Amino acid sequence: MKINGEQHQSIWYNASSDCAHIFDQTLLPHQIEVLTLNSVASVAHAIKSMQVRGAPLIGAVAAYGVYFALRDIPAGSERTQAIETILETRPTAINLRWAVERVLAAAETEGFSPARVLIEAQAICTEDADICSRIGDTGLAIIQQISAAKNGDTVNILTHCNAGWLATVDWGTALAPIYKAHLAGIKVHVWVDETRPRVQGALTAFELHQAGVPHTYITDNAGGHVMQHGEVDLCIVGTDRTTLQGDVCNKIGTYLKALAAKDNNVPFYVALPSSTIDWTIRDGVKEIPIEERNPHELTNVYGVAPNGEFSNVQVTPTGINAVNHAFDVTPARLVTGLITEYGLFPASIDGLSEIRKALDADTAHKKAR
Amino acid sequence: MKINGEQHQSIWYNASSDCAHIFDQTLLPHQIEVLTLNSVASVAHAIKSMQVRGAPLIGAVAAYGVYFALRDIPAGSERTQAIETILETRPTAINLRWAVERVLAAAETEGFSPARVLIEAQAICTEDADICSRIGDTGLAIIQQISAAKNGDTVNILTHCNAGWLATVDWGTALAPIYKAHLAGIKVHVWVDETRPRVQGALTAFELHQAGVPHTYITDNAGGHVMQHGEVDLCIVGTDRTTLQGDVCNKIGTYLKALAAKDNNVPFYVALPSSTIDWTIRDGVKEIPIEERNPHELTNVYGVAPNGEFSNVQVTPTGINAVNHAFDVTPARLVTGLITEYGLFPASIDGLSEIRKALDADTAHKKAR
Repeated sequence: MKINGEQHQSIWYNASSDCAHIFDQTLLPHQIEVLTLNSVASVAHAIKSMQVRGAPLIGAVAAYGVYFALRDIPAGSERTQAIETILETRPTAINLRWAVERVLAAAETEGFSPARVLIEAQAICTEDADICSRIGDTGLAIIQQISAAKNGDTVNILTHCNAGWLATVDWGTALAPIYKAHLAGIKVHVWVDETRPRVQGALTAFELHQAGVPHTYITDNAGGHVMQHGEVDLCIVGTDRTTLQGDVCNKIGTYLKALAAKDNNVPFYVALPSSTIDWTIRDGVKEIPIEERNPHELTNVYGVAPNGEFSNVQVTPTGINAVNHAFDVTPARLVTGLITEYGLFPASIDGLSEIRKALDADTAHKKAR
Repeated sequence: MKINGEQHQSIWYNASSDCAHIFDQTLLPHQIEVLTLNSVASVAHAIKSMQVRGAPLIGAVAAYGVYFALRDIPAGSERTQAIETILETRPTAINLRWAVERVLAAAETEGFSPARVLIEAQAICTEDADICSRIGDTGLAIIQQISAAKNGDTVNILTHCNAGWLATVDWGTALAPIYKAHLAGIKVHVWVDETRPRVQGALTAFELHQAGVPHTYITDNAGGHVMQHGEVDLCIVGTDRTTLQGDVCNKIGTYLKALAAKDNNVPFYVALPSSTIDWTIRDGVKEIPIEERNPHELTNVYGVAPNGEFSNVQVTPTGINAVNHAFDVTPARLVTGLITEYGLFPASIDGLSEIRKALDADTAHKKAR
């Protein structure tokens, strides 16, 4: 996707210095700064401090982290500890564990060769961009259908948080169908939820603005109102984790938008790569532990001060009590469909079982090659 | 109620300088500054710039505005225009028009005497404090019942925006039952929604902190999550305008919380003085025009910078499009009950008709005195 008209991915390998590069997403959308990842510590810091965000990109960065561990640390408890450090950076991100396990499994066949991990990390990136592109195609069909039903009138789409290309390697998940529709000449307009406390909506607005997609930034509070007034044709959000009955764990506030969609007969779609499905969990509300982040994110807001400097302001009085829930779970009954790289599926045990079949067939096909 | 341990109301008349005083609520909760209102212009500015907020307090301030108009401006088109200016400061606030019409009607009987308007403005303040106290008593009974059902365990209450004493003359509306419960020794804990874009939740947290009421400040996004996990026993919110079928127009985002309450069988109460009922409107979603405020409130956040100065930061990239919806409408079907100065009523045509009867009887009783 594009930044200032130039084609970019959100992570890339630099062969000449044997490192990976990312954009520092804590500075976006205000400043565009490229960071270098060259050690387990820099990878752990990038994930923990949210210099990278989004399940797929976190997975890709973690894969490079394993590469640095195998390259820099001799086999033994220190190396094991380093990999454990990477795994512990974000306990909710199922994709992180998936990526780490995948590169380790690949390396195992070749005596834990760092070179093999590097190839696998790069393969994860290439595949992720391809998977997101296919998610985009699946969602594009839905948008095309709505556009046709509206005789080509603008299709209004609401999204929450940032599930754009900055959260993946390219294209994004929830935003991929929107980019595909825009590139196909379909009229779209996106309602962008602010997404407090970390205001990832500003990243979504940044992405859409860079891509020339019409959009309107609104408070998290406003989504119900715009749906109530017929100004939303569909919702598309991303997810960090989907259970085998189709419950969806995503950024805090997603559940409220799903309720509003249901109440106003607005279809509510969740876009995801199948790698983010947690096949071990059924009831998301009961079984998924919800991360509580530092309340400072809530009581303080970051941005650009009038003097042009990057700063924070405290919005609450000193001494009050605050809690910062990072995610919530949207029950499957509120989800119209799951937009995946294998097509559109219902959010149900049957739907997930269909995804499982497609995934297994794909895996078998790849192994056969 | 209390600020730094001292008893205060949110507006008071100063006889020695013939003016009214308020707290500048744009500086709260960070700075406590008393402002002087002494002209139509200062009143219009106070309402428009949200130095005062909340339907009842806006009504009281507007009443003083009419006093200044009659005191300072000779009868004629200029005076009429001045009163029109006051009416136009906040088109959604039905209470504002009610207060202006009430003081004008009182003055009319005595040749538009400013002294008569002053008496009526002061009466509005005294009555408002009394009405809020009675709203508190109505809501207290609900909290007592839940507390008893929980064998005295903490009652968890979620509120949105600030419907506390700072939004009225004293006690508040949604917070009045909470203060009464706390003073009665009932264990309560309040979930305080941040309430973007203007972060009135910080005012609620400030009030509760000053009053020693246990509370937790959360993002607007988190309310669904805490309800889903059984951590909310009831919701109480305020309202700017209630229709004759019980639809409730309140701060943007209220509707989303009402949906979450419904989905989790949490009772959702709305606390209001009967003066905020709009008897001319039935379908709130269709008929109430929703104010759109300056998007700057959304793209910029105000607070205290690390150097201790009051400042703002821009949270969004420059060039994006933003819209700032100020209110939404919660349909009556999502409202468990209306907590009023006349008792608890269902949010329905029948319930409103009961409130009307109580109001008419009260008015007749007052006239007879």
